[in-house]
Amino acid sequence: MNPADQGPEGTRPPPTRRRPGGRTARIRQQVLDAVVAELGEHGYDGLTTDAVAARAGVHRTTVYRRWGDVGGLLADVLDAASDDDWQPPDTGSLERDLAALNQEIYAALTAQPPIMAALIAASFRSEKAAQAQQRLWEDRYARCEIIVSRAVQHGELPPHTDARQLLIAATAPLYHQLVLLRTAPDPRLPGHAARTAALAAAAGSFAKSPSAGHA
Amino acid sequence: MNPADQGPEGTRPPPTRRRPGGRTARIRQQVLDAVVAELGEHGYDGLTTDAVAARAGVHRTTVYRRWGDVGGLLADVLDAASDDDWQPPDTGSLERDLAALNQEIYAALTAQPPIMAALIAASFRSEKAAQAQQRLWEDRYARCEIIVSRAVQHGELPPHTDARQLLIAATAPLYHQLVLLRTAPDPRLPGHAARTAALAAAAGSFAKSPSAGHA
Repeated sequence: MNPADQGPEGTRPPPTRRRPGGRTARIRQQVLDAVVAELGEHGYDGLTTDAVAARAGVHRTTVYRRWGDVGGLLADVLDAASDDDWQPPDTGSLERDLAALNQEIYAALTAQPPIMAALIAASFRSEKAAQAQQRLWEDRYARCEIIVSRAVQHGELPPHTDARQLLIAATAPLYHQLVLLRTAPDPRLPGHAARTAALAAAAGSFAKSPSAGHA
Repeated sequence: MNPADQGPEGTRPPPTRRRPGGRTARIRQQVLDAVVAELGEHGYDGLTTDAVAARAGVHRTTVYRRWGDVGGLLADVLDAASDDDWQPPDTGSLERDLAALNQEIYAALTAQPPIMAALIAASFRSEKAAQAQQRLWEDRYARCEIIVSRAVQHGELPPHTDARQLLIAATAPLYHQLVLLRTAPDPRLPGHAARTAALAAAAGSFAKSPSAGHA
């Protein structure tokens, strides 16, 4: 889920991980790499289209014409992060799948430099970045629904389980503590939040039925 | 939990809700009311010490000397919000207490003008506001621990239950969906998140023991 590592739209990274595509794709990749590097070093406040252009070795008018402003650059970093073949972990059990997923989120949220934290912070500054961040999360949650359907197939969960609500319950405590409450990172957090959601799911908390789920 | 309604430090609002205290307390209240009003109307980007001073009817140097900058003003709004006698709901059951608490959070996060959302957004802009936001949340979570100790006394939960983890599991989905994912408000959210946490708690998810809780 590291936005710095993604290939451009509609392509798949070849085994050697050499940047694919033509000149346009290459320039996009150079620019997005530069955005991530600048963001990691200086945060949102130090991010400028000029510094990105200089770092990427492209002309500033190229950046300006294609991305417009800092918000457009950040939005494209986030959109590029969805252009991958990421799949959620498949460990054979609901709780372990959720724990492995949370481990990835935890690693991204506590990474240095704090790229993911800086992108989330930027989404409070730029509407374009906010919308792209939202698209990326929706894409990730949609891909993760297979964790829940596998658990249903294995008989771990009842057939009508609300996958999205379960996934949000499993992951929300990480975002809440690390992004909003800013509590010190605790390596037990990913496993604990996974276990809580799995126990609640087993107890029927995410069962969908005509009457269930209404307050 | 509305920061606009709080009395100044160390005082309690008299029954008539007239602003208590002397001139200093009165000025503080006028200024903090003005910050909240300006924030509601213009958001963080439109917030200036000059506009706050004008709205509060005090001299701009008064604001500058006492609060320094916009970050200092926001931090004081958040600190003032802790100076109240707020207590968490007491309904007789864990799940209903959590649902009532979530109802308050949901109302604050979906209120118009979006003061709480603007304060959270501001905490990504100003380190002073971020620290004050953190203090306010820690204060609220600490006050809410009584919900869990009452449930332990009633025999609803095992004696060694991690109150903070339970409270975070109960409330995190609201913040995650309304603040970060920006999903459309759903009035079932408060009750559902409360039920999930209560079911997980009954299943032993927040039990503290020498071995429990380690990943």
